[in-house]
Order: sequence, then C-alpha cells, then structure tokens
Amino acid sequence: MAFVLFGSTVAGVTTEIINTGSELLLGRVLNTHQQWICRTLADRGRTVERQVAVTDEPTALVAAVREGLSRADWVIVTGGLGPTCDDRTRDLVAGLLGRRLVHRPEVEVQIRAYFEGRGRPVPARTRVESMVPEGAEVLVNRHGTAPGLALWLEPNPLREGGRASWLVMLPGPPRELRPMFLGEVMPRLEARFPLAEPFACRTLKTTGLGESYMEERLEGPLRGLVEAGMDLGFCARVGEVDVRFVARGPDAAAVVAEAERRTREAAGEHVFGVEDETLELALVEACKVRGLRLALAESCTGGHVANRVTNVPGASAVLHSGWVTYANEAKERELGVPAALLGEHGAVSEPVARAMAEGARRMAGADIAIGITGIAGPSGAVEGKPVGTVFIAVAHAGGTSVARHLNAFDRETFKYVTAQQAMAMALRVVLGVGLVDAGTRS
Amino acid sequence: MAFVLFGSTVAGVTTEIINTGSELLLGRVLNTHQQWICRTLADRGRTVERQVAVTDEPTALVAAVREGLSRADWVIVTGGLGPTCDDRTRDLVAGLLGRRLVHRPEVEVQIRAYFEGRGRPVPARTRVESMVPEGAEVLVNRHGTAPGLALWLEPNPLREGGRASWLVMLPGPPRELRPMFLGEVMPRLEARFPLAEPFACRTLKTTGLGESYMEERLEGPLRGLVEAGMDLGFCARVGEVDVRFVARGPDAAAVVAEAERRTREAAGEHVFGVEDETLELALVEACKVRGLRLALAESCTGGHVANRVTNVPGASAVLHSGWVTYANEAKERELGVPAALLGEHGAVSEPVARAMAEGARRMAGADIAIGITGIAGPSGAVEGKPVGTVFIAVAHAGGTSVARHLNAFDRETFKYVTAQQAMAMALRVVLGVGLVDAGTRS
Repeated sequence: MAFVLFGSTVAGVTTEIINTGSELLLGRVLNTHQQWICRTLADRGRTVERQVAVTDEPTALVAAVREGLSRADWVIVTGGLGPTCDDRTRDLVAGLLGRRLVHRPEVEVQIRAYFEGRGRPVPARTRVESMVPEGAEVLVNRHGTAPGLALWLEPNPLREGGRASWLVMLPGPPRELRPMFLGEVMPRLEARFPLAEPFACRTLKTTGLGESYMEERLEGPLRGLVEAGMDLGFCARVGEVDVRFVARGPDAAAVVAEAERRTREAAGEHVFGVEDETLELALVEACKVRGLRLALAESCTGGHVANRVTNVPGASAVLHSGWVTYANEAKERELGVPAALLGEHGAVSEPVARAMAEGARRMAGADIAIGITGIAGPSGAVEGKPVGTVFIAVAHAGGTSVARHLNAFDRETFKYVTAQQAMAMALRVVLGVGLVDAGTRS
Repeated sequence: MAFVLFGSTVAGVTTEIINTGSELLLGRVLNTHQQWICRTLADRGRTVERQVAVTDEPTALVAAVREGLSRADWVIVTGGLGPTCDDRTRDLVAGLLGRRLVHRPEVEVQIRAYFEGRGRPVPARTRVESMVPEGAEVLVNRHGTAPGLALWLEPNPLREGGRASWLVMLPGPPRELRPMFLGEVMPRLEARFPLAEPFACRTLKTTGLGESYMEERLEGPLRGLVEAGMDLGFCARVGEVDVRFVARGPDAAAVVAEAERRTREAAGEHVFGVEDETLELALVEACKVRGLRLALAESCTGGHVANRVTNVPGASAVLHSGWVTYANEAKERELGVPAALLGEHGAVSEPVARAMAEGARRMAGADIAIGITGIAGPSGAVEGKPVGTVFIAVAHAGGTSVARHLNAFDRETFKYVTAQQAMAMALRVVLGVGLVDAGTRS
C-alpha cells in the first residue's frame, strides 16, 4: 500500500506521540492510537513527526518522555493513567518534571458520578486517579474514570533554551481517548497553536480503476492545481483507491473544491464516497434514497457481504433477506437453482451465479440481488477453475449481469476482495437504474 | 484490555524496531508490523524494548536509526527498500554508516526470476534493489522483489565503546516481511544471539468466565508454579480471556505443560483453544470431529457469525446453510417463525429466537442451529428492550436453550460480542452432546 504525495509539505508544530504499555511490546494488542491520532491531525492540517512505543517499565517510559520533551512542541502520551499498579505515567511524569502530585476534588466528584450513574460502588483504588501533577489542566473523561492531563511547560526544563512544550497525557482505552481527543484536546490545540494559514483537505473514495490508471486519468485535469501548490495523493487499498487533495492558504477550500469537481468530471463513475465512507455505506444509501430493496445470495463469501452491509446503521430498510448457501442442496432448496444446472456447469459457474441472484431476487421480492459463487481456497480447485475463481451476478429489473474474476489470495482476503467487486458492481447497477442522478450522492 | 504478568521478566538482547513511512505518520495505514514482530519474538522468549515510527524524510529516518544503533544490540528497520523515489532506507543507512552501495548480481538474478515466474517483464527501476550497502548480508525475498539486508556492525561506530549491534532491514509489505522474518531472520537471530536458557510459553484461549474470576479460579492451582518462577499472564479480550504461561530454565517445557494441565483441570470447560485459535475454529473443528452439521439463522448479527465460521478453511463440511433474516417476513418465510409469535412477543424475544433456531435446524436438516435476534442500534429500542438487547438460541436434538444478554456497545462491537456469546454457547452444546471427550480437542 503506497501513499504518494506530490507537492510540498509545510512544517508546523513539531509533534510526537508516545504510546506506553508492556502489552504493546509483547504484541498482545494492536496499537491503533497511532493511526487514529495521526489521521485525525492530518485531516486538520497537522503533522506528526515521530511515534514511539515503550513498556511501562519506569526507566524506559521516563527516557521516552524526556526525549520527546527535548525535541517537540507537543508531546502526546497515551496509557498508564488508570488505577492499577502498572499505571505509572502520572507518577513518573510528575517525578521527571519535579512536580508534586496534588489531590483534585473535582476529579473525585467526576469519578463518583461516573460510578453512581452506573449504579456501582466507587472502587477505593480509583482515588489515585484524582492525584494530578501540580499545575496540570484536567481533561474530562466522559467514557471512563481516568482524566486526561495537560501541562504547558514554559519554560520547558528539558528543552534547549527552555523553549515551551505542551505535554498531553491521555487514557489508553480508545473509547475514552478518542472523544477526549476531539472534545478536549483539539479546541485547546487550535487555541494554543493556531494554524499559520487556512487548511483544507478532501479524500475521494474510488473503485474500479487501478491506482496508476487513476493517476493517469487525473494528471491532465489536476496539473494546474498541483503546479499552484496543491498536494495530490493516491492511496491504493484492496479494490479501492483513495484520491486525496490538500491545500493551504487563503484559497485552500476553493482549491480543494475545484480539485474535487475536476476529479468527478474526469472519473466520477468511479467515485463512490468521501473521507471514511465505505462501499457498503454507499450501496445502502444509494438503495435507500431510491427505495430499492437488496437481497444477497452468498456461497464462497459465506455472509461476508451481508455482514458488511448490516454494519451500516439503518441497513434494515434495504436488506430484508440474505442467504448463505454453502452447499448445493441449499442453493437448490433456498434459491431454486436447478439441480441440472449444478450438475452440468458445477456450482462455481456463470449460470449458477446467475440463478442464485435471480432466485434471491424472486424469493425476497427484492429489486436488486447479488449472487456469488467461487472457490475461496485453500483447496477446492477444479479443471479450468483455479482457487480464487469467482462468479458474481447482479440481478435487477433490467436483466442480470455476471462477472468472472480470479482473486488468488488467502481465504479472508479472497472474501474481502470479492465483496468489494460485488458491491461495486451492484452500486453501478443501482446508480444506473435509479431516478436520482449520481452527482447528488455525496 | 489489560495484560498483567506476575513473576519475573528476564532481560536479554536489547531490541528496537523502527518503522519508516510517511503513510504511517499521516495515519493512512495501520502499523501491524509492531504487533506481529513483538508477538513473534515474545513467543520465542525475546523482548522488544522500544518501537519508533518516523516518516521517510531523510533527517528523521537517519536520526531514528542513529539513536537505535547507539542503544540497542539489535535494530530492525521496516520499509523503504522498494524501487520508488521515497524508498530511501538503503541509501540513507549506507550514508550513515559510511558504506558504499555495491551491485549484487545474485539479487538481480532473483528479481529477474521473480518477474519471469509471473510472465512479466522486469521493470528497469527494480535495478536499484540490487544495490546493497557494502558488507551487507542479503535476505531472500520469496514474495516480492526487494531483498532484506542484515549488517553485523562490530565495532558499531555509533555505540559507546564500539559495542556490536545487528542491523536488519526488511521490506514493508507484510506478505513479504513475515515469511522473511520467520525464514531468514529467526535462524540468524538464534545463531547470533542464542537464548541464555531454554524458554517455553503457552497461551490458552478461554471464554465464559471474566478475567478476575479466571484469576481467582487459577490462583490456588498455579500458586506453586508462579512462586517457583513461572510467569502467569491474563489478557482480557471481548468475550475471551487469554491465559498465558511463560517459563525459563531447564524445566521450562515441563513447567508450562504442568500449568496447562492444572488449568484444564480447574477450568477446562472454559478452554476452547490454544495460541491464536479462534472460537469459530473451535466450533467448526468440534462439529467436524463429531460429524455434526451446523445451521445459522441471524437477524441482528446480519451474517457476522456466518462470515466468521466460513473464514475457517473446510467450514463447508459443517455449515451448509445460513440465513440472514433481517425482516419479519423473512423470518416467517424462510424459517417458519409463526406470524402470531412475532406479533405477540415482538421480533426481539425469547420465543422468536427459539423459533428461528428450530426453524433453521429443521429447514437445513442440521444437527445444531443458532438463532439470534436483537437490537444492534443505534436506534430500535422498545419498551423493556434497550439497544443492545439480544436473545441467542441454540437448538439441538436434546432441546433448545435460549440466553438473553445486554450488549450495550456500538453496532460493530455489538455484533462481535453477540457472535462470541453465540459460538461459545453452541460450542458448549457440541462438546456436551458429542461422543468425543472434550479433553481430546487440543
């Protein structure tokens, strides 16, 4: 997965993230904070220079914070604020900066309210969470007990010339950290370190055209904007390519809007969403706005498409029925696929995919139905149909189309890629047969 | 998610990981290398002290490598070995160490073979991948073109007293890095830095008992082993608790085996697997070994269970049919749930869950069937049934059991947790009704 940026990048507030926790360095948990914080900041015109993960062993943790504070304008520390004996960030940072821990009654009140709201007694050990390094600002935790802490160090004793730094400590659980970061940290950041100039960015989500073809297609239309200083980036994902525009300066918003307009003009049929939108969201929304009902008949994807479609809140308005017809007899019994068809062509074939989609559409009384049959592997290959072979059918009022792909990946990737292809195919049909113009989708 | 280790940890070869790539610090991709490498090493008795991510901007990358080499016995750098202009690791490391890049014909031969094997011409720009810092050992890449590189620095010019360090550079794509790490790096590591004493570890996967209850249950049986130096760790995941034993010394393997035996004796009904095994794998294997056929009727989980069950290779021997009956009429039509039942009790109710499971079992001719109906949210709450309410039924020859849970999470977590509960419940039924003793599963 490559992310290529053309154009300039602008230096700003130097920022470092320190993730603490022995479980990170034992590989027991995945560090999702890095991506989430970096992404959140990048979308607001900020960059992160370095991220470090260390155990909660005192020497390692203190060394990492000391180094961060010796270099950066802003240091974010995650984890180690809870009530257990391996939550050491509060104490160690206070020690490093030579500050006492002081009791903050308002934190104790919040913690009590948190437990009382849940009808549970307040554990004695949470009292330590209201002990705060002297001078720290408390960041309210609405989804847990440990408050975040912010310290404005001016002078910063650990930095050359005493240059100021902002130290922000956040609780480790993502469901506590994320709302705190957005609600408590970002407003303080904007006040503390305002951007030097306006910033705008936009990501368009596309499907059905490879990264280099997309680059080629957009080169002409966007050249002028890139030459005038706009950043243009491509990020190839499985079955998708993100196209991202970043601009700074007084015209930033207008530049990005113009880039989006030109891209939709040049490759609009491939754009299915913006920012973090998924294909499943695009498909559900496109069906919903047209009052179309969707049905799914999955063999080799085994419910993967249904699972993703039903991840979209409100999917029940669109998807009433799905089938996982793994066995031949299920294809016959549930979807009315003729036994003769299965016998003659095999379960993995164009006619069976077609019959599955048409059967699902008929049984469910749906407007659009997807039928998928293929060989997910690792075994199951037959003459002329290697592992990864898949047939995807989309049935609708205007007829049924079937596509054949060779998705030669491991089993889970096979399912993911096949689902991407199936949803993209169904989306094109929905946009084509619908009454609302594709241009109004975003 | 807490990982608590009781007992001692043993210091070894100091190890640091440096992940390079601007896409990491823009938050465009998730850094999975850290977890994977740390986990792989931890399972082999090794620890990682620090992980750093930096952009591929030269100053940042060089500073990170210099610092790593000034501190650690072993420095692992990932990314930046490809053929594009932002792949700078090779050049920058050669520059930092004052080494020339030399052409290695054997790498060029490998690259040519890689492309010829795929019937594609060799891109001219891949030639740069055969330019290697003088003295570097080449690590074969069987899944891509960029070789890994290993440099034994003795003396290490960047470390106090010239103490030796081992610098290993690996390509960024996980499907290239992982096999290279296991096949090329690990044998060299064992030779270069053998463990001081034998090491053994074992993780038991459990479900149905919370972390603190599990801790309580195992405290007595395992106390002797922990006092004699074994590490005991618990890692609470959603619907699962990992129990992990780590031992060192001549008896390491025997100690860990004894800990496993005692744990199975004390809490065996909750142990569903070992190491990375999943509940879906345990369920499929348990059904397969007993010749039992499984059917799934999902409403609120929308195919999530089917998707996970079909992630298991060979699931087709066990799962023939699944239904996603999101709408009431689908529950009636597909599973024969009586309209009166839906009218009287509502779709989210004990009788409907029961009727779904029994209907699926009957329609599919299955031995065991799961029926799930609930309110995934964010909307849909009704009087007495808040968002997160779910009924899970398991139907089998001996009858049907139904459980009610309140899984008050976001939509996707709701589906995951509910699936965990449903699979754990079905697994207990399978183990109970089966002919093979549960103790033979692992």
